[in-house]
Amino acid sequence: MGDPRQPATREASQSVKADDLRRFAREIFARAGMSDTHAGIVADVLVWADLRGVESHGVIRIPRYLQMIAVGDLNPRPAIRVQTETPAAVLLEADRAAGPVAMTAGMDRAVEKAREAGVGLALVRGTTHTAALGYYTLRGAGQGMASIALSGSIPNMAYHGARAAGVSTSPISIAVPGRPDAPLVFDMGAGVISVGKLGQARRAGRAIPAGSALDANGHPTTDPRAAQIPLPLGGPKGSGLALMIECVTSLVVSNSILAEALEGTPEGRRHKNNGLALAIDVGRFCDPAAFRREVERLVRALKALPRDAETDEILLPGERGQRTLEERSRTGIPIPRATVEEFSRLAERLGVRMF
Amino acid sequence: MGDPRQPATREASQSVKADDLRRFAREIFARAGMSDTHAGIVADVLVWADLRGVESHGVIRIPRYLQMIAVGDLNPRPAIRVQTETPAAVLLEADRAAGPVAMTAGMDRAVEKAREAGVGLALVRGTTHTAALGYYTLRGAGQGMASIALSGSIPNMAYHGARAAGVSTSPISIAVPGRPDAPLVFDMGAGVISVGKLGQARRAGRAIPAGSALDANGHPTTDPRAAQIPLPLGGPKGSGLALMIECVTSLVVSNSILAEALEGTPEGRRHKNNGLALAIDVGRFCDPAAFRREVERLVRALKALPRDAETDEILLPGERGQRTLEERSRTGIPIPRATVEEFSRLAERLGVRMF
Repeated sequence: MGDPRQPATREASQSVKADDLRRFAREIFARAGMSDTHAGIVADVLVWADLRGVESHGVIRIPRYLQMIAVGDLNPRPAIRVQTETPAAVLLEADRAAGPVAMTAGMDRAVEKAREAGVGLALVRGTTHTAALGYYTLRGAGQGMASIALSGSIPNMAYHGARAAGVSTSPISIAVPGRPDAPLVFDMGAGVISVGKLGQARRAGRAIPAGSALDANGHPTTDPRAAQIPLPLGGPKGSGLALMIECVTSLVVSNSILAEALEGTPEGRRHKNNGLALAIDVGRFCDPAAFRREVERLVRALKALPRDAETDEILLPGERGQRTLEERSRTGIPIPRATVEEFSRLAERLGVRMF
Repeated sequence: MGDPRQPATREASQSVKADDLRRFAREIFARAGMSDTHAGIVADVLVWADLRGVESHGVIRIPRYLQMIAVGDLNPRPAIRVQTETPAAVLLEADRAAGPVAMTAGMDRAVEKAREAGVGLALVRGTTHTAALGYYTLRGAGQGMASIALSGSIPNMAYHGARAAGVSTSPISIAVPGRPDAPLVFDMGAGVISVGKLGQARRAGRAIPAGSALDANGHPTTDPRAAQIPLPLGGPKGSGLALMIECVTSLVVSNSILAEALEGTPEGRRHKNNGLALAIDVGRFCDPAAFRREVERLVRALKALPRDAETDEILLPGERGQRTLEERSRTGIPIPRATVEEFSRLAERLGVRMF
């Protein structure tokens, strides 16, 4: 998927146990003002991304989250409230809660509604960085739901035909109930390349593929130092999808992100996200055990397809991440030395024990 | 989007008024056994695609639909029934109805449910070729709904890493309420290129872009005579999305398409589709007039972005199709001579007056 996986080498990184990293992140966020429960949720979502090899959405975000708290964009003590409720849907006003807190609440409400009504929708208004969407859809899938999550965010990707950012690399995630040890979880961004991967290429000094990104002036580039704006996947497809996601996540809850930012309003300069969680109760429409068997049957049929010359094994959505998770659950998560040092300073400043 | 637009020239085509084409198609389907109502719906959906320049999903499909009726894959007198109903969702057993009949019924039920419950879901089981999904999402949008439609179909696209078809170029469409004369309607397939465009390139003898398709043996090709299998957009993104769409449209309603076809079962050799229609009642979550204004505001902001060297005008999802519709509503729809001749033979055989 668009997952940026850092080739962290032993030399340049320290291996940290997931539990230790979770404890560290939880204490940091608690010191920054969050309740223990909320701090635990944010820590769990970030470390989950690290476990699955999606470092760009992992604990590397801690300093940015703290900065958002410092400037008032992220509210560590949010009063999340139901603004609108229908028999199958809720609109949650997130009060600038951390994305993991608001999106977890959103998916849980969507699941509750789906148990009653067959389908459940949660619109999450005014949260912050929604983090790795696969966490929430897997959470829904684990409760028997075919789950979809969307996130509306700031313009960081070119609109097709434009040489400036106009839409977001809006992620979409879909997960369905399956084997607990091999869940099917799909997560894609709408760009040819993710912002995280641009950052990795920059740090590694590695050229990026032609047709992936523009520089700050809107010219196509393969220079990792110059590349700033991802191009949309499939031209009008990726940017059109991103535009529709803004309509469905942000405009439906009267909380425009793109237009505010593009017009340069004061509101448009603040960080915020909107999210959507949808749950379909599989068991209301078919036998859930038969559904799982059919998923497995489809997986077998796809894995048995003849492979192209570059492919050793046909992989399913989420499969690589699951393997990384299993490995890192045993061996630990590699944290780059520079990040360890940054965390060390943070720990000292906030009076938190290092991992 | 993935819309195949044929450059029909005056020499090679006859211009036919939309009303005349609709009347012709309706009478053909009525003679083939459909009720007048159903024949009218199918005619309307096909001609709508022609009006918008999506010929691959237009009246060119008539002979194929008749063939599906002849072999029993399309039931012209379906007993569409509610198999499961919840406060916000229905599972419609389509009884092999024509896609336009079943999907229109599905979107209408989703809209009804959304009026009650805020969100409405229709799962459409066992229909046939779902035709242009934008028709159904626009139908929902016209009733104040943010609308999403998905379609699960036969394996015709490569799965990432495979050199054979494993998934469908599963389309996804999203539409939202907006200006009636400029609706925002998005429609994309999951492939780099659509099957329709492969056919156009073949007929025109025009090379297809590298990285778009495989030949029958699974080797990459740019030869339009050899190209048969579209590659997935963004590799694992396009094929992963297509796989998840099969799970959500087909497996949830116990009507596998891909696994049946890949295993080569007798059921897998028959034509069928499954569909999903989702409606979100915008007016339950915000002021619908304000929503429309915000859509317009976003459209203005995107259109004002600086353009790249190849772009004269930044276009929104559905905008090109809408312009083609306006033009063709005035000037008529160009039907290739070969198609006119085929229709003429059909008309004679079924005793229907030509347009």
